Amino acid sequence: MSGAMHFKNCGSVLVTGASRGLGLQVVGSLASGDFSPGKIIATTRSPASAQKLQELAEKHPNIHIITLDVVNQESIDHSVEEVGQLVQEEGLNCLINNAGINVVADFQTATAEMMIENFHTNAVAPLMITKAFQPLLKRAALRGGAGGVGSMGIQRAAVINMTSLLGSVELNWGERANNFKWYPYRTSKSALNMVSRCMAVDLEPDGILCMAVHPGWVRTDMGGSEAPLSPEESVSSLLTVIGGLTEKDHGSFLNFTGEILPW
Amino acid sequence: MSGAMHFKNCGSVLVTGASRGLGLQVVGSLASGDFSPGKIIATTRSPASAQKLQELAEKHPNIHIITLDVVNQESIDHSVEEVGQLVQEEGLNCLINNAGINVVADFQTATAEMMIENFHTNAVAPLMITKAFQPLLKRAALRGGAGGVGSMGIQRAAVINMTSLLGSVELNWGERANNFKWYPYRTSKSALNMVSRCMAVDLEPDGILCMAVHPGWVRTDMGGSEAPLSPEESVSSLLTVIGGLTEKDHGSFLNFTGEILPW
Repeated sequence: MSGAMHFKNCGSVLVTGASRGLGLQVVGSLASGDFSPGKIIATTRSPASAQKLQELAEKHPNIHIITLDVVNQESIDHSVEEVGQLVQEEGLNCLINNAGINVVADFQTATAEMMIENFHTNAVAPLMITKAFQPLLKRAALRGGAGGVGSMGIQRAAVINMTSLLGSVELNWGERANNFKWYPYRTSKSALNMVSRCMAVDLEPDGILCMAVHPGWVRTDMGGSEAPLSPEESVSSLLTVIGGLTEKDHGSFLNFTGEILPW
Repeated sequence: MSGAMHFKNCGSVLVTGASRGLGLQVVGSLASGDFSPGKIIATTRSPASAQKLQELAEKHPNIHIITLDVVNQESIDHSVEEVGQLVQEEGLNCLINNAGINVVADFQTATAEMMIENFHTNAVAPLMITKAFQPLLKRAALRGGAGGVGSMGIQRAAVINMTSLLGSVELNWGERANNFKWYPYRTSKSALNMVSRCMAVDLEPDGILCMAVHPGWVRTDMGGSEAPLSPEESVSSLLTVIGGLTEKDHGSFLNFTGEILPW
């Protein structure tokens, strides 16, 4: 059963980094589900070179491709204008901050520039994007959604931050730590977890749910060919988790299987 | 009782950001203790304008002031050369990454530049400094110290990262979260916690202890006048904790009172 059926009450979803990997799979799974959201807004830095996303959009008229370079404030501001025109008074129900990079470097090879580059894309960009989309999310939250005002979830308004188990400081010990000595990536994801938690505090008064989710280790360009999960498996489970989020999950860090992870 | 007595078996300590606040107090408390380390290396971006530190150094000949701009790689590399000449074959026993800034901004006011500036100084700089000083730390660790090879602690070699309770993602909830909505600072300290944990994994084979400690909320320029702790109180407790570190504290996140804090 596809996780996308849980999106039946969600009018609009925006996914960043949708040209490939998990982002592309999220768009594809949402579009092909029985209960596809009314508007699937897929952002990518360069739509012209996002061939697979273009092909998906040709098949599914509810996919809207929008240009967004997540580390460029002008680009963020421009995307908000475009999305505002698309969603109008309904606002944006679900923002999935998925775009991310892995600047691979260990203790010996890490440079300040590598650390900052990964931090900017993986931790700062989700903050700047959420800040910019807050008015559209608030607009959706004020309408109440299927559960009415007082409830929380994607039927109303939600910010989902795609983080990683590798961002867990607690779990970075023992065998796990020795397998993935990725300083820029790990640090950026720990930072994203803090950003996610900070934003949860500030978005709560508007009824906007905010949480962080680990998609599993997936066979994408980033995850490599040895990863145990296919993008379809990961995203099916992810969408089930995201679709079922309620107040109790606000400010949480969940595995793609739904369990709580330690910070 | 001064915490500095616990440094009796530590030959050399380096403290970054020693011109004011906690860093200056650490240098002062170490220098005036009954068992002062042989060499107290106090770094500051601008020694010429560090009047209080200069006054301390005039009174205590074991204080050595060295120029270090923690976000400048050339400056880091140059400081390693100077410290190498000071400590010679004994190496460096204890590196205290204390320099830090608080770029105050909340959800509405935070910019990408502010996030990156705080991240660079508070999380990236301790990594780049530790990388650069690793050979000197390793040299000290190889000599074994008072406890002999196999033991860990400041008598041998240790990296102490001055972090903050505000970097705890878990504790950033409820009343605490509403009191300190400092996005750049909180995020930089969560990132530092991950850096600290990553470095603990990589420094362990050389016998170099690495951990993160929260100094409490202290009446410094950063902490403000309403903070409950004087610099003397904080540092006395801090030095007791740091002086008593053993293998079991490797990779930990401790309060200045010695308790374990959640990530």
